[in-house]
Amino acid sequence: MPIWNRRDECYDADERLQQQMERLQSALNRAYNVPFYRNHFARHGVEPSVVESIEDLSRIPFIEPCHFSENYPYGLFAVPLRDIVRIHTARGNGPLPVVSGYTKKDLLIWRELVARALTAAGVSSTDILQVELDPGLANWGRDYKDGAESVGAGVIPMTTLPPEKQLMILKDYKTSVLVTSASGAEQLVYHLFRANLNPNELALKTLILVGDAPGDNVRGNLEEQLHVRAWLHHGLNEVPGPALGFECEERNGLHVSEDHFLIEVVNPDTGELVKAGEEGELVLTTLTTRAYPLIRFRTGDRVRLLHGACPCGRTLRRVEWLPYRADDMMVIRGVKVYHKQIFHILTRELGFEPPLYRFMAVKQQMMEYLEVSLGVNESIFSDEIKEMQKLSQKLSDELSLEIGLPVAIRLKEQGSFT
Amino acid sequence: MPIWNRRDECYDADERLQQQMERLQSALNRAYNVPFYRNHFARHGVEPSVVESIEDLSRIPFIEPCHFSENYPYGLFAVPLRDIVRIHTARGNGPLPVVSGYTKKDLLIWRELVARALTAAGVSSTDILQVELDPGLANWGRDYKDGAESVGAGVIPMTTLPPEKQLMILKDYKTSVLVTSASGAEQLVYHLFRANLNPNELALKTLILVGDAPGDNVRGNLEEQLHVRAWLHHGLNEVPGPALGFECEERNGLHVSEDHFLIEVVNPDTGELVKAGEEGELVLTTLTTRAYPLIRFRTGDRVRLLHGACPCGRTLRRVEWLPYRADDMMVIRGVKVYHKQIFHILTRELGFEPPLYRFMAVKQQMMEYLEVSLGVNESIFSDEIKEMQKLSQKLSDELSLEIGLPVAIRLKEQGSFT
Repeated sequence: MPIWNRRDECYDADERLQQQMERLQSALNRAYNVPFYRNHFARHGVEPSVVESIEDLSRIPFIEPCHFSENYPYGLFAVPLRDIVRIHTARGNGPLPVVSGYTKKDLLIWRELVARALTAAGVSSTDILQVELDPGLANWGRDYKDGAESVGAGVIPMTTLPPEKQLMILKDYKTSVLVTSASGAEQLVYHLFRANLNPNELALKTLILVGDAPGDNVRGNLEEQLHVRAWLHHGLNEVPGPALGFECEERNGLHVSEDHFLIEVVNPDTGELVKAGEEGELVLTTLTTRAYPLIRFRTGDRVRLLHGACPCGRTLRRVEWLPYRADDMMVIRGVKVYHKQIFHILTRELGFEPPLYRFMAVKQQMMEYLEVSLGVNESIFSDEIKEMQKLSQKLSDELSLEIGLPVAIRLKEQGSFT
Repeated sequence: MPIWNRRDECYDADERLQQQMERLQSALNRAYNVPFYRNHFARHGVEPSVVESIEDLSRIPFIEPCHFSENYPYGLFAVPLRDIVRIHTARGNGPLPVVSGYTKKDLLIWRELVARALTAAGVSSTDILQVELDPGLANWGRDYKDGAESVGAGVIPMTTLPPEKQLMILKDYKTSVLVTSASGAEQLVYHLFRANLNPNELALKTLILVGDAPGDNVRGNLEEQLHVRAWLHHGLNEVPGPALGFECEERNGLHVSEDHFLIEVVNPDTGELVKAGEEGELVLTTLTTRAYPLIRFRTGDRVRLLHGACPCGRTLRRVEWLPYRADDMMVIRGVKVYHKQIFHILTRELGFEPPLYRFMAVKQQMMEYLEVSLGVNESIFSDEIKEMQKLSQKLSDELSLEIGLPVAIRLKEQGSFT
């Protein structure tokens, strides 16, 4: 399988360390120009100069999701607004969105990283690549479009079409690579069989699965049902971008582009680095981004660092991304849904805090959606059925627009709430 | 006001004619390599060589919307698929979408044209530009993102967020340029006043109005209510792209980038060129696109060519785009809605042709949407209210996804159908 950028992806380990160290020091200096970081470092009694080796990085304090809200919207930007050419909005853990900015050069780096990831899955200029992601992953959709254009593939960008129409395009346009979530792919299979289409009538050969962490049998089933090979990509809303980690043809862990990101794995309770090969929380430092440096960002993602050389030839270390188990977040169709965020939207729309509520992912006809059950207090809610229907329609419309996923509201009597 | 590309936009008229003639001959030769065009020309007994001057172009036959369906999906492409890097899907007048392709170079040309149009409205690298268009204009949203990145403005790309949240971003992110439809802008004004926000609290100074052809008082009202200046841009789904025509600071007609497009104005009944300054149908020939040449495409748009030099210095001729009056099309929130297409979707979803139906644009709380009234025949439809509600929900969901606009279905008794 070809490698997009052999020099950068297969760098000698010592040279890599040297490169990372140089880039880290510039990154810390750039961050130090941002008032937030300067104060943050000062509160912890450090300055960028304390970092003389990669090990010293642990003397620098973490940044956490709360720092995004506190610096909303542009407080984390390290360049003047006139140098920013793209501003992305992503859902965060609170009422305020996470804002990230890119300079022209940042966008070029990100294109390069997506191109790397696609090349590792065998995507080339002979492919037609279709992006089918939910509106909640619009930023990633744009990144795939850009990256695929770099490798010269024909790109059918994200649309909002019903599944039958997506399938028609997949077939008629001779799509060979589909970028979607595991749930999205399962839904496709459902409609494929429903339309009595034989997978052999499709030109599809490669599936790029984004966002979800599918179980092994999910991937295997999809490969069998669609007659394709599937590859996992992983990303974070805050970086942003979908190809922070990508599988090569070995499909044994996801390579991280360590020339642009420094990764650490820490014990989520103590913040200490875990021992080699142990599971922990991924901590990310951006080495090259200009607009929006992240220094020791606690991602909340659980990972295990894999050791040993990968037969593919890339020296970029691999991580195993573990299904995330924090209590306040779900992944539905690849879209991260924060409990707190739903709570905020419900409270805003209702005008009061919902007394009883529950969220879950529900699958029907292989279509996954978010179901929100709300306990109905008769003293609060109208007892007219029509009014109740209007309320539930309004809540599902707002939630759906805001998180970019299909949403169903179930109003239940409080007594029957389980 | 600056000019993005002074050489190309202010070319001497004679040189322009010479350039157009050379480009036209290459375009005809490229098209002639496409089997469809070769046959189409042969049926009309012409070859590219008959065109020895711009006037000779009238010997070449028109292409019409039906040719898109007949050549679905890739029959109009003039380059091999491996040279295509972007494939856009747009709604057409029939059951099949209009497919257009771009090579890398085509994309660069299109970026350039959007950058021209934005620069003519005063947009520069000091601006923050927010794109708020309906999903039905997703392709145009991508084009604005690319073009604005070229001029170096910070871009907040299209999202699907509720209006209150869009307004929050507009205010908090200090958006200075908003790209939207006239209806979208009116909706914004509604929510602005509803939120008790003074327009002076916004950084907004420029409004780019796409898609709709707003009446003069609509533009004037928006400018007054939002304390901005507004500029019109115009495009076609089939070209595709939003900046086929753009206003300069004179705002007296829309300049057409004649180095890339050759325009003719014909009598829609006879197909003959109209007299200077007369109203007619716009016929478009692409001069530089590689992937997807259009030769004498009858756009259906009504225009009047304006004569005389524009004080802005651009020699690109100007057209006045007239509100389109064909019976089978409406423009809602900038999105073109074809009656035939709605009829196709209804027929597909119902399983039979709807006996009585009517479509209209409805505005409520300044939000415009498509209302489809369906005459209910009791022998056909279920008389259970629940079933009817399910049906109407399903129809509105499908229509809304497919045309990219909010849709409401009204089921009415046939007797009461007006």
